[in-house]
Order: sequence, then structure tokens, then C-alpha cells
Amino acid sequence: MFDFVIHATSGPARTGTLTLPHGTVDTPVFMPVGTQGSVRALSPNDLRATGATLVLANTYHLHVRPGEQVVAKLGALHRFMGWDRPLLTDSGGFQVFSLEGSRRLDEDGVEFQSHVDGGRRTLTPERATEIQWTLGADIAMAFDHVVPGGADEATARDAMERTLRWLGRCARKHAELADGRAGGQTLWPILQGGAHVQLRTEGLRRISDLGAWTGLAIGGLSVGEPKAVMYEMLERLEPKLPALPRYLMGVGFPEDLVAAVERGVDLFDCVAPTRNGRNGSAFTPDGPVNIRNAEHREDARPLDATCDCETCTTFSRGYLRHLFMAEELLGLRLLSLHNVRYLIRLAEAMRAAIRRNAFGPWAAEWRRRYLHTGSA
Amino acid sequence: MFDFVIHATSGPARTGTLTLPHGTVDTPVFMPVGTQGSVRALSPNDLRATGATLVLANTYHLHVRPGEQVVAKLGALHRFMGWDRPLLTDSGGFQVFSLEGSRRLDEDGVEFQSHVDGGRRTLTPERATEIQWTLGADIAMAFDHVVPGGADEATARDAMERTLRWLGRCARKHAELADGRAGGQTLWPILQGGAHVQLRTEGLRRISDLGAWTGLAIGGLSVGEPKAVMYEMLERLEPKLPALPRYLMGVGFPEDLVAAVERGVDLFDCVAPTRNGRNGSAFTPDGPVNIRNAEHREDARPLDATCDCETCTTFSRGYLRHLFMAEELLGLRLLSLHNVRYLIRLAEAMRAAIRRNAFGPWAAEWRRRYLHTGSA
Repeated sequence: MFDFVIHATSGPARTGTLTLPHGTVDTPVFMPVGTQGSVRALSPNDLRATGATLVLANTYHLHVRPGEQVVAKLGALHRFMGWDRPLLTDSGGFQVFSLEGSRRLDEDGVEFQSHVDGGRRTLTPERATEIQWTLGADIAMAFDHVVPGGADEATARDAMERTLRWLGRCARKHAELADGRAGGQTLWPILQGGAHVQLRTEGLRRISDLGAWTGLAIGGLSVGEPKAVMYEMLERLEPKLPALPRYLMGVGFPEDLVAAVERGVDLFDCVAPTRNGRNGSAFTPDGPVNIRNAEHREDARPLDATCDCETCTTFSRGYLRHLFMAEELLGLRLLSLHNVRYLIRLAEAMRAAIRRNAFGPWAAEWRRRYLHTGSA
Repeated sequence: MFDFVIHATSGPARTGTLTLPHGTVDTPVFMPVGTQGSVRALSPNDLRATGATLVLANTYHLHVRPGEQVVAKLGALHRFMGWDRPLLTDSGGFQVFSLEGSRRLDEDGVEFQSHVDGGRRTLTPERATEIQWTLGADIAMAFDHVVPGGADEATARDAMERTLRWLGRCARKHAELADGRAGGQTLWPILQGGAHVQLRTEGLRRISDLGAWTGLAIGGLSVGEPKAVMYEMLERLEPKLPALPRYLMGVGFPEDLVAAVERGVDLFDCVAPTRNGRNGSAFTPDGPVNIRNAEHREDARPLDATCDCETCTTFSRGYLRHLFMAEELLGLRLLSLHNVRYLIRLAEAMRAAIRRNAFGPWAAEWRRRYLHTGSA
């Protein structure tokens, strides 16, 4: 259980299989985000149809509403959501440090204001671990202190040191809850360190010293810093990363997935496919399309002629545009569905290119078409 | 084509099969409403899963947006919506007489203000017929003048007389468009006459004199008058109705379907299952349930244990309540889906009861449970 086997590599890019209690996950993989226990506008059947194997839900949101005890009484998170494949819960660290409302941080944890009822609540490493254990996802994340992308080195070090101390507390709590029984849930550490390579390099080493992990997340990127900074960080870290599944949190857009897989990343999550879909923006092999544009009014073609999703095999661009102009709920679903399927297919294509040991040429060709670059 | 065969009766209640260009429809039947070419929050696959055989769309709305020429360029209404089973279009009469905004009526037709762009537009019997021909539903409806439920006899007679004159014009236009080729689309007349039995009786006779119809709609009921008035009107009309499929427009709620089938009605449409579903109200055999109620918070039971829909076979009441409290779009879909399936199953149950020639006892038992009445 929790094994990760790498089948092929192509430069730093790799493809493998991660074994989890609720099934296996082929990597690179994109995880749709079901923040509140529902991937916005999509049903579990829709998600299965996209080929999703691993879905993310959020500890902060489910703790605040409906509360992890309610989820437990309704059979824990898998049963609650009607999703029988693997799940990962984020720890809530990112949310308490980024959501609106006042918060108070000390060594013990974070006191914050619920966005639902305004009440004061506290998350500590132990509480975040307990809540995730109660929710029962396959993978739980350690509770971390996230700083903005532009944080100076002293601020970033302070947060990284705290994240490391909290990791020790999460791991102890998780072991206590598991009580020697392996197999139900694993806990992954999150590497912080802002945009400071030496901090992250040190963090990597110290995480390894803290235990034998089954995966590693890279947090605190894609939080406002320029993309080039993220790409360079991944390049610098890659040779030093342990032989574990690598999860780049909160990423991303298609071009980010390609760039990060090229730099050795295995797992991704992002709200972009569903959020952009609800705004009428669709991923296609030729770049994003805004379905509200007047040019689609009488366009009988599918959104993406290469796509096998329900949206693309059933409806015209003209009809999809009509749904958005007429504010029909079905439009939100159909574009979300397509965008998730697009990213799942993108991951499939990347796995195939890696198996052919041809990731570089594949990525160049992909970029030429998606980003409309003149040459590879 | 357009044949209607009655298989069994149980008092005035009857069950039959209506043959239409895109398939057959077993009656009594409930039609989900796809006003703008989409049944709110549901996809064509969802509708097929509910067992829907006939779906309604609206001429006024599709004319105003995206325009029937756009629908035609995208392959006409069936292809546009991705629905390959029978369709019926309402004529727009009800909308131009009931929607907000100023309108000017004369013998030729109605000038009204578009609710989308505020522009002045005109619908006449000929235009409404032409638009519906362009949309291409299996059944088109005649353009009618609808008056409020409490209209006095003079007002109701004026509107009925105009509706009859307009019916002649619709029929001539429809014959001209069909140009001798039968089979693509049929036109159904709408009986008006307000709450005045003698007017409606006269209207019935005069509609029959105007042509050999394939169906008959009863309009102008369920528009504000007490329910008892509608039920009595149906009782008084029933012995005089021709041997055609009878469509009671804009009805209804479960108790209205049962009462109207008991009085010889065959077809129904209503936005109630989807509108109420989006408001968190679900039909169940024991009456409506408001899923937002706190009592459902930790309820692991399905919404309706007798139901075979995706919502009831997959999710708990507690999860459905969470979706509504958290304003997740999936909740709107899941309750709409269940409510439509509920009405389709209700029609199935009524057909079975009629075939057993046991509609009366079945209805009494149904009411005892749904309306919580003490006795049959």
C-alpha cells in the first residue's frame, strides 16, 4: 500500500503508478478539486467519465461546513461524496493563510474566523490531522504555514521552520491515530521555503530526516510569484528530490502542467478547469476559447474536435454559447466537464510521450499548437 | 404518424400511445420544460435517465434568444439541444400575455418588448407558426390569447373568439409550410374560455369544426384560479372531449396530475419539478421535503427510498442538504433530476393502475400517503 512504481522516464519527466487504498493512480495525474466535497457542477459519474482517478477535498471547508463529525456520521468522505476512487485532503493550511478574515498565528496553530458563520475557530497540526483522519481520504496533508510568493528570506524561513516543527506534530498525531495499523491513510509532508532555493533545499533534507514518507508535496508556489520563478525552482530542486511521488500544489493551467512534468512533477490539483469553465473559458489544443464570443453564435463545430467528452461529442459551440448567454446552468457543467477531461487527457498524452521517451519533442509540438509559438 | 391509440381506460382515465416523428409517447405523460432549449440543470442524458419521452421548449424564448434562424443553422431544435426524442414547442401566446413589459394587442397579433434586449417585436399567428416550423419540434401549438384565471365572461369570450380566429390562421400557415408533405410536424389547437364552462363547451365544438386535429390542448387553466375551479372544469368538459390526446398546459404538481388524469387528461408540462428542485424542495411519496431543513443534517437515508434515480441511489439526505447549504451547483441538478424522475414514475404508476382498471383505488391510496389524508 502507498507504493509508487516508476515505469518510464524521459529526462526528468516520469510516469508511474501510485497504489492507494481506494485504487491505483497513474502519474502524471491531474486531480479535480472538490473543495466542499463536490467538484463544482460535476457529479461523481461525470468525474468517472472524465477518467479522474484522484480527487481533492478541503479540510478547512469541510471542517467549517458541515463539520467532520457530520461527514463521519454519513459514512466518511468517500461515502459522503459518492466517490469510491482515491481522495486526497488538503490540510487547511493554505486556506487559513489565504482566505479573507482576521487570523492569529502562534506556535500552537492558527486561530481564524469561519467564512460561514464568522465564529472563531482554531486549527493546529494535531487538529488538522485528526479532522483529516475523520474524513478518511487516502492521502492526508501536513498542516503548513504558507507565505506569499514575494516573501523575503527571513519571513520564508520562519514559515518553513514552523512548517517543519508542525510536520513532526502531524506525523506523531497521525501515527497515534493509526495506532500501528497501516493501510487506511497516509500523510504527506509539504515543502515550503518561498522563492528561496537554499531554504527549499534545506527543507527537503530536513523533511527526509523527519521520517520515511510515501509522497512529497511542494507548496507555496503558484501563489503570486512570476511563473519563471516557479519553473526555475522546480529545475533546481528536481535533482535533489527523493524517489517519491511529487505533488505540486495548486497547479495548474495546461502550460504549467507540461512545464512541471518536464521538471519531474507527478501530481497536480487546481480549480482552473472548473472555475474557468463556469466563466465560459474552455481549454482546447489550440489554446483557450471564450465560448461567449460572438464568433461562436452559429458555429456547429464541437468545442474541441479532438475531445471525447460528453460536451464535445454532443453539442455545438453555438449551443454552448447560447447556454452561457441565456444563463442556463447546463453550460456551467458542460464547460467544467470538458476542461477537466481536457486536463486528464493532457496527463494521458504526457504519460504516453514519456513511455516513448519522447517528452521533449512532444512538449515542443504541444506548445507550438497551444501557445501559438512560431517554432519549437 | 400522429396516431393516438388508447389501450385501456379506468373511468375517464385512459392510457395510450401517441406516435410522433421522433418516437412514441406512452400516456399519461409528464413533459419536462426546457424553456430556452435546456431543461434547467439537466442534460439530455439526465433526461433520458429519468425516462422522459417528450420535452417542451418555448417559441417566445427561443425566438428572442438565440433566434430561430440560429437554431436552424445549428441543425434545428433536436440537434441544437442534443435531444433525439419527441419535442413540443409552446406557441409563445402564454409568454407574451404573462411576461413583464408592455405589449400591444390587435387583431393581427401582439407587439411586445423582448425581456432580453428591450426591443419591440411582434408575434402573429403566422409568425408563431413559422418560427415553430423552423424550430422543427414534433408538435407545434397554435398561437393563443390567454386571459387571467379570474377574467369575466366578456373578456374571456373576446380572447376565445380571437384564439379561434388565430387558430384558423395558424392552421392555414402550417398547411402552407407543410406544402402537402405530412409527417414532419403537427399543429395542436388550444382551448381557451377562462373559468366559463359554456364558453369552453362552445370553443370545443368550434375547434372541431375548424379541422381534423391530432391533439387538443386545454390552456388558460392553472393561471391563478382556485384548484377546485380547474378540477370542475375538467369534469364538465371531459364527456364532450373528442377522441384525441388531451394536453393540460402548465400543470403540474403531483396532486394535480393525479386529479387531471382522473378526469381524462393525457399530457402535462410544468416547471415545478425543476424550479422547486432548485429551491431545495423534493417530491416524495410522503409529500414534499425541504432538503434545507436541519432535520436532514445527519440523515444517511436517501431522499426517496422508493426511487431509482441517480440522486436517490447515490447520495444521502445529509449530503444533499450540505450541497444546498454550501451553495454547490450539483445540488440544483440532483434535486431537479429526482423531481423529474418522480413525475415520470408517477405517470408510469398511473398507466399501470389504468391498465388494471383500478385508477380510483390507486388514486385514493396515493392521496392518503402524499397528502396525509386520514381516509381514502
